[in-house]
Amino acid sequence: MPRIDGRRPDELRPIRIERDYLDFAEGSCLISTGKTKILCSASVEDGVPEFLNGSGRGWVTAEYAMLPKSTKSRSPRDSNRGGRAREIQRLIGRSLRAVIDFKALGERTIILDCDVIQADGGTRTASITGAMIALHDAVSWMRKAELISSYPIRDLVAATSVGIVNGECLLDLCYAEDSAADVDFNVVMAGTGEFIELQGTAEERPFNRECLDRMLALAGQGIEQLCQIQRETLEL
Amino acid sequence: MPRIDGRRPDELRPIRIERDYLDFAEGSCLISTGKTKILCSASVEDGVPEFLNGSGRGWVTAEYAMLPKSTKSRSPRDSNRGGRAREIQRLIGRSLRAVIDFKALGERTIILDCDVIQADGGTRTASITGAMIALHDAVSWMRKAELISSYPIRDLVAATSVGIVNGECLLDLCYAEDSAADVDFNVVMAGTGEFIELQGTAEERPFNRECLDRMLALAGQGIEQLCQIQRETLEL
Amino acid sequence: MPRIDGRRPDELRPIRIERDYLDFAEGSCLISTGKTKILCSASVEDGVPEFLNGSGRGWVTAEYAMLPKSTKSRSPRDSNRGGRAREIQRLIGRSLRAVIDFKALGERTIILDCDVIQADGGTRTASITGAMIALHDAVSWMRKAELISSYPIRDLVAATSVGIVNGECLLDLCYAEDSAADVDFNVVMAGTGEFIELQGTAEERPFNRECLDRMLALAGQGIEQLCQIQRETLEL
Amino acid sequence: MPRIDGRRPDELRPIRIERDYLDFAEGSCLISTGKTKILCSASVEDGVPEFLNGSGRGWVTAEYAMLPKSTKSRSPRDSNRGGRAREIQRLIGRSLRAVIDFKALGERTIILDCDVIQADGGTRTASITGAMIALHDAVSWMRKAELISSYPIRDLVAATSVGIVNGECLLDLCYAEDSAADVDFNVVMAGTGEFIELQGTAEERPFNRECLDRMLALAGQGIEQLCQIQRETLEL
Amino acid sequence: MPRIDGRRPDELRPIRIERDYLDFAEGSCLISTGKTKILCSASVEDGVPEFLNGSGRGWVTAEYAMLPKSTKSRSPRDSNRGGRAREIQRLIGRSLRAVIDFKALGERTIILDCDVIQADGGTRTASITGAMIALHDAVSWMRKAELISSYPIRDLVAATSVGIVNGECLLDLCYAEDSAADVDFNVVMAGTGEFIELQGTAEERPFNRECLDRMLALAGQGIEQLCQIQRETLEL
Amino acid sequence: MPRIDGRRPDELRPIRIERDYLDFAEGSCLISTGKTKILCSASVEDGVPEFLNGSGRGWVTAEYAMLPKSTKSRSPRDSNRGGRAREIQRLIGRSLRAVIDFKALGERTIILDCDVIQADGGTRTASITGAMIALHDAVSWMRKAELISSYPIRDLVAATSVGIVNGECLLDLCYAEDSAADVDFNVVMAGTGEFIELQGTAEERPFNRECLDRMLALAGQGIEQLCQIQRETLEL
Repeated sequence: MPRIDGRRPDELRPIRIERDYLDFAEGSCLISTGKTKILCSASVEDGVPEFLNGSGRGWVTAEYAMLPKSTKSRSPRDSNRGGRAREIQRLIGRSLRAVIDFKALGERTIILDCDVIQADGGTRTASITGAMIALHDAVSWMRKAELISSYPIRDLVAATSVGIVNGECLLDLCYAEDSAADVDFNVVMAGTGEFIELQGTAEERPFNRECLDRMLALAGQGIEQLCQIQRETLEL
Repeated sequence: MPRIDGRRPDELRPIRIERDYLDFAEGSCLISTGKTKILCSASVEDGVPEFLNGSGRGWVTAEYAMLPKSTKSRSPRDSNRGGRAREIQRLIGRSLRAVIDFKALGERTIILDCDVIQADGGTRTASITGAMIALHDAVSWMRKAELISSYPIRDLVAATSVGIVNGECLLDLCYAEDSAADVDFNVVMAGTGEFIELQGTAEERPFNRECLDRMLALAGQGIEQLCQIQRETLEL
Repeated sequence: MPRIDGRRPDELRPIRIERDYLDFAEGSCLISTGKTKILCSASVEDGVPEFLNGSGRGWVTAEYAMLPKSTKSRSPRDSNRGGRAREIQRLIGRSLRAVIDFKALGERTIILDCDVIQADGGTRTASITGAMIALHDAVSWMRKAELISSYPIRDLVAATSVGIVNGECLLDLCYAEDSAADVDFNVVMAGTGEFIELQGTAEERPFNRECLDRMLALAGQGIEQLCQIQRETLEL
Repeated sequence: MPRIDGRRPDELRPIRIERDYLDFAEGSCLISTGKTKILCSASVEDGVPEFLNGSGRGWVTAEYAMLPKSTKSRSPRDSNRGGRAREIQRLIGRSLRAVIDFKALGERTIILDCDVIQADGGTRTASITGAMIALHDAVSWMRKAELISSYPIRDLVAATSVGIVNGECLLDLCYAEDSAADVDFNVVMAGTGEFIELQGTAEERPFNRECLDRMLALAGQGIEQLCQIQRETLEL
Repeated sequence: MPRIDGRRPDELRPIRIERDYLDFAEGSCLISTGKTKILCSASVEDGVPEFLNGSGRGWVTAEYAMLPKSTKSRSPRDSNRGGRAREIQRLIGRSLRAVIDFKALGERTIILDCDVIQADGGTRTASITGAMIALHDAVSWMRKAELISSYPIRDLVAATSVGIVNGECLLDLCYAEDSAADVDFNVVMAGTGEFIELQGTAEERPFNRECLDRMLALAGQGIEQLCQIQRETLEL
Repeated sequence: MPRIDGRRPDELRPIRIERDYLDFAEGSCLISTGKTKILCSASVEDGVPEFLNGSGRGWVTAEYAMLPKSTKSRSPRDSNRGGRAREIQRLIGRSLRAVIDFKALGERTIILDCDVIQADGGTRTASITGAMIALHDAVSWMRKAELISSYPIRDLVAATSVGIVNGECLLDLCYAEDSAADVDFNVVMAGTGEFIELQGTAEERPFNRECLDRMLALAGQGIEQLCQIQRETLEL
């Protein structure tokens, strides 16, 4: 059965990354995956959260929000900062912290803002993939500004979703597919292909081990391609 | 004395309007004036605020917010919805309501979301000029959808700022000029050249009548050009 | 056509200022204009907002709120601190800051509380006129207490409203007139007759230049009288 | 030892009640006891809280707040609605509900707003004594408006404080006395001299039964005088 | 007439105190009185509220909340922290502060958390009786940890309720009795039998002096028994 | 290397489930796993969230909160309801919804409150295991009350954590182990051994596939034991 937008089961949506989208940010990009569009920016600030004060170590944190009209049915602004948004921004922050050398950052905090301009599924995984670009550029800016002397990022991070829809295992679900999925999986990997975060949910009924294995394999292929696009964008 | 970005005193910054920027909105545009960039969208919803229930009349309202990294120094999200933002969104709503025939809308509300992607001065006036485009397109969408039978907009609305900087009267202040201004004026006009809203503030010391007259003349010229750009964008 | 309360078009409502209304405030008055009654107080506090720390300069800020039963239909307390109240208190603060020598204040903040005891139109302009009295007396108290050595107020500030009601230009609108106005203008002037703030709004349809000129002239006359009453109250 | 303001131990501060202080309220007064000044108003609204829906019975509730500069040291507005204010407004509402015939009110709510203009001790008890006046007048207004056919108030309610200061039992404590009190008692009584509410607190150390008896006797005398003043004010 | 649960008018419900209920608290107990069950814990923290900074004196404060399903009809979590809860926690803190020697505590704060696991009337008085146990054990912990050198508690504190139900004076009301009571009294006493706090409320109609005297006598008997149980629990 | 509390790598902490812990709840238990103690209750309410109105289908949702002194260092109450708590309660609700037949429930909502009395790691997984008991008993209560005619639960749900600590794969981490873990995995399974939810996080550095496989096997063994304990508790 062909997918709703004509893709093969193992095909990502078209990715576009406009690097340096903002003039005033230390790092930023506008990432699009199909109709999903997210503005990712990185801000470098002095100081760290209280629990790191005096440790000589830095911090990376994220915020995620959807613009009210990013979806067909407008969501009030207050509702955009509730439980779901907080869960997602915790995931984004955790994912990127997994490849950071905090010692090398010094007592500075990098805030990654992921603002969803348009949402058609996969906003949390696209946020991670885009925030990686903004984070890299903010760190480059810090080196140029001679705030740091070594490069504090150990590897790339990228993410995508996989799911079971009508019994078929699909890569990079759009909103319509996501709504119909029996199982929904978000996978975050490092450039090495190792796992950083796995979140799988049975929406309708439990799933078995064989199903899990197929989804992980598919996610791995997709993330490999995303890391390749990140490398091209960053000219690494 | 030349302006900071080389413009003549009576020169607007370059305007760019990307109409239909969003796929899911009833009307939308991304408007840029120089480095200031605002995403304007219009949402059509059934129902009206309580005070209009049963009146047969519609309503138009606006919301305004800045993304955290729209300025060089990041602003926390909560601070972006405080007194200043509310004051601005009230101005935007009031300005556009001045040209609406509420009877023709029926008991529907159009919400105009103005989200500042990047701020370099003049965000409130650019929001008004851009929201006009989104509003027009939402109304056209309503007609195509046969929700309304007549066109409920009586005229165009556009806005700009003028100010006195170092004794000189300047059109369309960028942020650096705005910060240095002795007097700061926001002017909203209809396509006919009549006033819809005037807000003038002496930042440092009071100003006299002659000064007021010069500013109003300059604003009038600028808004005439903006309405011309609106007409071209909308192919009116 | 006679006005609703029998006044001439260019006639202010009766003004009454009870100076030193509060025993514990550094400066205070109860100002009445017709049935509108506002309690204005000034509090002198050490310290300034963060952006002025270490500058040696002081600050003046205002808060505005309506008591729940200041109007015929009671408003819940929470609703009294929303967008409209914040917009008004920003206007009050800005207006009085225009005549202050912040250097002479030292790193102190004067908070002007304007609490509406009864509202019959014109609360924001009466707040400004009354807050001027409280501010003056707080500053006199500071001199007596030898906190400051020079007088940091450069001029008086007073305000009134004007509007177009049924095609006629009227001074100092009461609530019933304000509700029926086509155009509504708030004007803040210094004792010299120069402008500090102008806020004009077309409630129903745009207005033209001639109309603007008539309103400004009428406002100028009214404010001249208000400043005269302030001078008598303060025995200047 | 003479009291701080020269009163005898069993002497109330001078009471002044300005009835009908507000033009738009169904009932209101400004009550002063010494320097303590409270604006009490009553609002009649249709409907009752959910737990009374359909019961045919009415409700009386109260709100209490202090203006920021009601005390020497200004309190931020937000802090004026915290735990202490809520505790006080619950006491005011409960006290007046004890004399109301809710059946006779019908499904209507009377809201008693007690706003402290100036605070010099005893604000909660003065609020009760003043709210009684506003409540009476609101009920009279309802009868004139033919909303009710019988008089739904069974008795007067008044309140005062007593306390032990330096071992001496004092009536109607002002702020300075209240701050120095070992025991602090608020007593609410009906016009019959029976108790409606008793709240006694040992501030420093526990107190014994004899001490309690002396305080209750003193409170009884004071409240008898307050009810007499209420009767004169209301011409009962 | 027998009581709803078969008790005599002057009989307390069965009390059970599980001391050291929590492994990580400086002091804690689970107190049950009939079906009412409250978890009381004491936390010792460095520092004091601002008004005590530098005074060398400590502070004791309390927080009270009900778990959502502590009652038959579930209460939303937000509603559990409103006016009633704040009033109760202020009472708990005040009651225990009456027997503390703050000088001996040093600049430390003890926070008493009273969380209602199950509510069947008398939660505020059981909280006080249980918090006394937690407070005692926290103070013992401080002595063992050599944070303090003398014992800063001067006496025990316990509390119970009394009320008039169907004309009869009853001790320790359960929820069903409390709902039917004409008068409701909460009494807090020290181990010496002296009063710390008295709160009496006429729910339906005013009550007289004779009635008050009977209630106080009954409360005194009950609290004597509670203090005896505290002594046994604490092996004093 | 022996574990901190002497357990084998594949050994659960001692589990204790006190069924029917609350008298007023439709279903409840106090579950302990080692020192972690959670009170789980189920409330049956009429009605469903708006998106299900009129669907004839029911809903199951959860709330999770920690008592302030559930951990060694007391957490303020407000902080207990932030992003982490919301993420956890979303997980609990989702997990139990996976085995519910919503049609059979009718338009009713079951709210599962999970309140952490004491926290020593694994609170989210213990909440799921305990909420299953409360949910089962609430559903039995509904059948006895003849609100439903068929049994709407398709299977058991239980959960545990696994992790990599010092290179070793451990089952059911206590807090000290969790803090030292390189990888942290929460696994939710149905009684059939199929997956309901998988959440794995690399705390320090990415992990590979072989590591994932070992953790999933260990989690499977643990959950099998937990389901056995659930069956015994529920006498299934």
